[in-house]
Amino acid sequence: MRIGELSRRSGVSVPTIKYYLREGLLPPGAPSGPNQADYDERHLYRLRLIRTFVDVGGLSIAAVGQVLSALDDETVEGHQLLGAAHRAIAPRSTAARDDRWQATRAEAAAFVAERGWHVSPDAPALDQLTDVLAAIRTLGFHELRAAAGTYADAAELVAERDLATVAARGESSGDDGEARALMMEAVVTGTVLGEAMLAALRRLAQENASARLNPGTDSDC
Amino acid sequence: MRIGELSRRSGVSVPTIKYYLREGLLPPGAPSGPNQADYDERHLYRLRLIRTFVDVGGLSIAAVGQVLSALDDETVEGHQLLGAAHRAIAPRSTAARDDRWQATRAEAAAFVAERGWHVSPDAPALDQLTDVLAAIRTLGFHELRAAAGTYADAAELVAERDLATVAARGESSGDDGEARALMMEAVVTGTVLGEAMLAALRRLAQENASARLNPGTDSDC
Repeated sequence: MRIGELSRRSGVSVPTIKYYLREGLLPPGAPSGPNQADYDERHLYRLRLIRTFVDVGGLSIAAVGQVLSALDDETVEGHQLLGAAHRAIAPRSTAARDDRWQATRAEAAAFVAERGWHVSPDAPALDQLTDVLAAIRTLGFHELRAAAGTYADAAELVAERDLATVAARGESSGDDGEARALMMEAVVTGTVLGEAMLAALRRLAQENASARLNPGTDSDC
Repeated sequence: MRIGELSRRSGVSVPTIKYYLREGLLPPGAPSGPNQADYDERHLYRLRLIRTFVDVGGLSIAAVGQVLSALDDETVEGHQLLGAAHRAIAPRSTAARDDRWQATRAEAAAFVAERGWHVSPDAPALDQLTDVLAAIRTLGFHELRAAAGTYADAAELVAERDLATVAARGESSGDDGEARALMMEAVVTGTVLGEAMLAALRRLAQENASARLNPGTDSDC
């Protein structure tokens, strides 16, 4: 298809598609004449993937580029898939790595070890958890720190299911190379979309719990 | 304290503090001379709150302004606190409200109703959930859609605990006005920090589950 049709079907404007082509997020189409190229379903799918990362996941174009490089890197396999995906989409931690931060990071690592979880000592999510624990301490919000165990229970519940989701996605293809691509993509999109889904459902569940506690002030009745 | 000390103790630069003052995020200090003002512990605390929303929550300055207005609005009480907090920090949904989106929104509302959850029909989190379900459908990722029930179970677990956290925070003060302020703040910071904590723990739990499934490729041994 021509770029106009690609734009119509994806809902992404032609200038934006050209920008993604220049940035290397979208592979070039097959040349079909002077200044013309032909695009196929894979281009359409990748455009949808990019828009999902940007619109739902809130990723920057630079982060999307990293995610797509990880997806395209066929040397990354098995357990490494997850680490590569997480590194690509990890929020950049801007906290100063001072002694206090290092102490909080040790606290985060100890919390994870107490749960019996095996994670890489340089997992980017450990830095994320550290930033959260540091903020909780700075604000003196010890009631939230005390809830971390319940949060970890919920995280385990979801994570077990996530791994099953990724495996099911891979099994939907008979071809090894395609299965790898589908699983890698399921890790990345599952992490981004799953996070947004969990956040939305948590807010809805909070509203439900709050409505039960405050029956008189329910806003919808 | 003078603005220099406020900067030192908060780790926020003087120009940034002045920017927050101009934007109304930080209330003015008490005048203490020509072109001088005196700041107190409440200014320091609010600066830390702003930095938490920006650095950990990833909120824009405009969103932080909305959150702080909700915090400062003493007419908002009880169950309304939660709605006001959620509206202030909801990611802006950019999806076109076409027939297809409306159908997906009806699906989101039906999912919530099937759980027996009572939520306002205009809850911003319903729009968030709709965007996620729409992206899942566009990408054909039905395995993730099938996991929504497990996600909702985890969300319920966390939400019950969140409400207890907010109540405990309120009970830590004997004064009604202060209790309201503490609870409102716990709702907002708990939503932002709790979301980041849950996301980090989910990634760590995924890594642990993946390490168990792929023992040969564990990256830390």
